Amino acid sequence: MTPTGGELRSCLVVGTGLIGTSIALALRRRGVIVHLTDRDPVAVRRAADLGAGDPAPPPGQVDLAVVAVAPSATGNVAVGLLTGNVAATVVDTAGVKASVLHDVRREMGRAEHFVGSHPMAGRERSGPGAARADLFEGRPWVLVTGDAQPDSLARATTLIELCGGIAVTMDAAAHDAAVALVSHVPQLAATLVAARLAEGADAALSLTGQGLRDVTRVAASDPDLWIDVFAANADPVAQVLTELRADLDGAISALHEMSDDPEWGGTSLRELLVRGNAGRARLPGKHGAPPTSYVVVPVVLADRPGELARLFADAGEAGVNIEDVRIEHSPGQAVGLVELSVAPAVAEQLVGALGGLGWVVHD
Amino acid sequence: MTPTGGELRSCLVVGTGLIGTSIALALRRRGVIVHLTDRDPVAVRRAADLGAGDPAPPPGQVDLAVVAVAPSATGNVAVGLLTGNVAATVVDTAGVKASVLHDVRREMGRAEHFVGSHPMAGRERSGPGAARADLFEGRPWVLVTGDAQPDSLARATTLIELCGGIAVTMDAAAHDAAVALVSHVPQLAATLVAARLAEGADAALSLTGQGLRDVTRVAASDPDLWIDVFAANADPVAQVLTELRADLDGAISALHEMSDDPEWGGTSLRELLVRGNAGRARLPGKHGAPPTSYVVVPVVLADRPGELARLFADAGEAGVNIEDVRIEHSPGQAVGLVELSVAPAVAEQLVGALGGLGWVVHD
Repeated sequence: MTPTGGELRSCLVVGTGLIGTSIALALRRRGVIVHLTDRDPVAVRRAADLGAGDPAPPPGQVDLAVVAVAPSATGNVAVGLLTGNVAATVVDTAGVKASVLHDVRREMGRAEHFVGSHPMAGRERSGPGAARADLFEGRPWVLVTGDAQPDSLARATTLIELCGGIAVTMDAAAHDAAVALVSHVPQLAATLVAARLAEGADAALSLTGQGLRDVTRVAASDPDLWIDVFAANADPVAQVLTELRADLDGAISALHEMSDDPEWGGTSLRELLVRGNAGRARLPGKHGAPPTSYVVVPVVLADRPGELARLFADAGEAGVNIEDVRIEHSPGQAVGLVELSVAPAVAEQLVGALGGLGWVVHD
Repeated sequence: MTPTGGELRSCLVVGTGLIGTSIALALRRRGVIVHLTDRDPVAVRRAADLGAGDPAPPPGQVDLAVVAVAPSATGNVAVGLLTGNVAATVVDTAGVKASVLHDVRREMGRAEHFVGSHPMAGRERSGPGAARADLFEGRPWVLVTGDAQPDSLARATTLIELCGGIAVTMDAAAHDAAVALVSHVPQLAATLVAARLAEGADAALSLTGQGLRDVTRVAASDPDLWIDVFAANADPVAQVLTELRADLDGAISALHEMSDDPEWGGTSLRELLVRGNAGRARLPGKHGAPPTSYVVVPVVLADRPGELARLFADAGEAGVNIEDVRIEHSPGQAVGLVELSVAPAVAEQLVGALGGLGWVVHD
């Protein structure tokens, strides 16, 4: 008997990479019976060893199948599960949604037992070994209704709840445009900057600072994973990139004008920098608050074991919750600077308390 | 009498922003007599209040004048100091070097008492209030010899030593090409991505993850400071951006081809991603070591005061030095993940010790 309220008693996870294994771990923690499968027998065994579920096929129809494979394979796998009645409902987790829904509809007509979804969580590392039961805790998890019937939608919603995610309903095209903007284009921009470094002089690279490290961090990601994402979301990504290229063309023209006439003020380039300020200021911070809502308290500390412990113990004594922390530290430096982010209401209290205990606090 | 061995007894700092005030603080710490000046009387008073030096003009010629003003003003200020014999040697700290040297030579002919320099240190905040005596500790500090005589070069080298920097000799053109690659173009790339966000849908921005935050962090920088830098280094920046645009054009073409023919593999785009991997891997990490030389140990922790203190105390008990730390945390999340970076040799020891004390350690 199929539950009508979205109850999940049994689940099949197809694809035991980072996402699939993390979902399996989260569901197991909540008492769901989980079966695991993957085209790679090593990956499925590893996930099972980590306690993610049973590597044997389910004995009968499960309540839910979760498809967590590459975007290009997702549609076919979902169709296979749907036509085989392997699960009452099939949910996918691919990072692109329109192409997957298109693939399913092409084979199935209306996809009444299929729900598209995309958990907005990830890590730089991949594979079952990087999985975490708490990977989705508090993270947005996009839900694309498509043609789904209420019972399938309820099961998908239960999946998100059990994993600790926050369901965000969007249509497939809006999702794909959104991830092009906030994920796929930033990835390519990081790659474009990093690609310039591949043949840079050693002396130039020795001048690297934190800014370049931040801009290029995601450029270390796996090309095989990304090429699949770009293929499945080619048009939205190309559109944002084309808009970006117009600004880039403007910047190059402005630089040429500045070179020809140093007195020329570079108005259009300045306007671009101001727009960059405005766009950056729109990013949600931790807890959904804008980044400016925390106060940064910089504290000098020696580069030896125990100093951070002592600092956090002293901050804890002061009853202050540290929201974020960043260590600034340079080659050969005997002292570093730790930047503690705290709520504005407690910043003064923290500065006073740490200063009173002998810490060198800046600002 | 001018010292011949590069001894610095007295110094005039022109421009009491972040860099000038930090230099003044570092020199004062080492016993140098420091005079301060700035076109903004509030800034110079603030720097003096912070203990950076004397806001009165020097009574006679100083050993060294440090020009720490905007790149566009640097040449004129240096020429004024040189022609007035205000200092035996004049050093500038602007982030571009060829245009400054050109400005000085145009007025002075050979610039025998002038040394160009660029400390590779900075912060997102500016002004004297953000200054730190340790800002340059262990950081590269580029030295451009130009026409400088040995005694002037010796004083510039002493300045860098007293500030704790590491002198790196480069010619002006090589410096400007290097900073275009590792600083100015990354800044513009971050701006280009952030500018796309200025008009993005709220729903799209709600899907923001850490990748976008990292890519766009420097896009929050001051447009007025940057427009001056771009004006003074227009040609090298335009050259790198033009190379980057060729890759961007290739990426857009590849995406169009992928859209027309989903079976097409996107070979050229994949090749770009691989080049991005290679470029990113060349970045020096903390302590000059490549980033891969640390092991990341992820630990789950509750979002309440005292948890970080307890974690670092436990790590300290284990005798392990934490090299870097990153808090991953999401909106509404009751638990967070702290990623501790440690030397590979001690990672296992740390994982064992923390696990034994009840911490949930991943991997």
